[in-house]
Amino acid sequence: MTDSANETNARGHRVITGFSNPLVKRIRSLRDKKHRRREGLFLAEGLRILTEAREVGALPDMLFYARGGLDHPLAVELEAAIGDAGGEIIETTPDILTKLSGKDNAQTLIGVYRDRLVPLAEIDRDTAGIWIVAQALRDPGNLGTILRTGDAVGAGGLILIDDCTDPFGVEAVRASMGAIFTQTIVQARWDEFGPWLRRGSGQLVGTSLQTDHDYQGVAYDAPVFLLVGNESQGLPADYQAACDLLVKMPMMGRADSLNAAVATAVMAYEILNQRRARSR
Amino acid sequence: MTDSANETNARGHRVITGFSNPLVKRIRSLRDKKHRRREGLFLAEGLRILTEAREVGALPDMLFYARGGLDHPLAVELEAAIGDAGGEIIETTPDILTKLSGKDNAQTLIGVYRDRLVPLAEIDRDTAGIWIVAQALRDPGNLGTILRTGDAVGAGGLILIDDCTDPFGVEAVRASMGAIFTQTIVQARWDEFGPWLRRGSGQLVGTSLQTDHDYQGVAYDAPVFLLVGNESQGLPADYQAACDLLVKMPMMGRADSLNAAVATAVMAYEILNQRRARSR
Repeated sequence: MTDSANETNARGHRVITGFSNPLVKRIRSLRDKKHRRREGLFLAEGLRILTEAREVGALPDMLFYARGGLDHPLAVELEAAIGDAGGEIIETTPDILTKLSGKDNAQTLIGVYRDRLVPLAEIDRDTAGIWIVAQALRDPGNLGTILRTGDAVGAGGLILIDDCTDPFGVEAVRASMGAIFTQTIVQARWDEFGPWLRRGSGQLVGTSLQTDHDYQGVAYDAPVFLLVGNESQGLPADYQAACDLLVKMPMMGRADSLNAAVATAVMAYEILNQRRARSR
Repeated sequence: MTDSANETNARGHRVITGFSNPLVKRIRSLRDKKHRRREGLFLAEGLRILTEAREVGALPDMLFYARGGLDHPLAVELEAAIGDAGGEIIETTPDILTKLSGKDNAQTLIGVYRDRLVPLAEIDRDTAGIWIVAQALRDPGNLGTILRTGDAVGAGGLILIDDCTDPFGVEAVRASMGAIFTQTIVQARWDEFGPWLRRGSGQLVGTSLQTDHDYQGVAYDAPVFLLVGNESQGLPADYQAACDLLVKMPMMGRADSLNAAVATAVMAYEILNQRRARSR
């Protein structure tokens, strides 16, 4: 079978069945951060996440599906919305979907989205009581999980400082369970973030082993900027020194730290719970 | 170079440099759960985790290291302890260590440990205020992270119900950051666990979307058995029905759930915080 540009199926969608098709190669290259940045595009997979994206107004530039991928009523709605917005829908084979996603059990739908990095200067900090700030976070699963937690606690977004893993990588997008579309995502240098922070209200809160402040024994003032350190190093000393408040969570066992995404969630829920208690 | 069984290095350790060495093949096979179970062995990597294991009395049957792996003073202590206990220490190449661990940047030390599954009947539930019970948990990173959180909150251990991912797989062991050695680990069927639970004290607590009980609005009574459901399905209805208490965490965004390890940690810290508040 050839991949003539004119080949369309009964739904009117272009059909691509060749691994060597240039578009397949181009989309496949989005698994590399360098190509994602150059194109300003990233991939998200699966009807559930693509539907959540649609519900917050994010539609893919391109949608790839394999046979059966448009059977579900929500997929039909997605198909119509993409068509209305001028996006392209492409039928392909399960093998090519697997190649695009790099996952053994590929979903039957893959969307190609514009990335959504927001400049620090465009953030309105007063729209949320909590913002999460991650420093040199390396694990994409942690980053995606922190986005998901951010959504759950009503955070405004995630500000990535220093050399964090790419939030638009396949693994981070997966772990975010759709929050990649709902959370504002910013990348900034520490020497930009600090001055920006101090030009407005905001309490910078970090966790540290070198403090006596129990995380439940202090008052958090919105907007709280919760600073999360690198998985193995924690927060550098000068970042800790820049915090308005350093707190620690109780550690009852042998370990002196939690997984970074877990620590972020325990802190974020405490901040949320204090807000809830005040509003009761 | 041949792998004569008699070849030893200047420290008196056996040297293995051949990929086809039968012991290398055997240890390599421990990456498969089937072989781990048959041998009752699993792998842990890295000086930090191996040292934590030693500090709680767990020494490997075998230790593999590559050049430089025994340079650190803690590694020398480990070497001596393994020697005293009659374990075997084997020098090998970085390439073989990489093959054993399946990780690109292999650590310079890999220990081969006896697994530590404890029968349900041997648990003394009153030794801890909280036990974590996972049902059909599929992701090894989540399982290891939950062990690490269990250590942090002073949990007694982790009880695995139904078809959970293997806690002794390389990825779970890594994510546990040593807690695989400090937390009691049990595997049981639901129809064993229920009767066992009811033969003593214990509050079975689950999370659910179908409840009005805020997780902060209820009182937890030790020992709490915190029941965590499968990542994509949550807790089955009959498991929810068996709980003494169903609670929900506030969800302020679009998502209706948290990552399983995150939800476990937020719940476990609330249970710990209530205990801390009562003891003040």
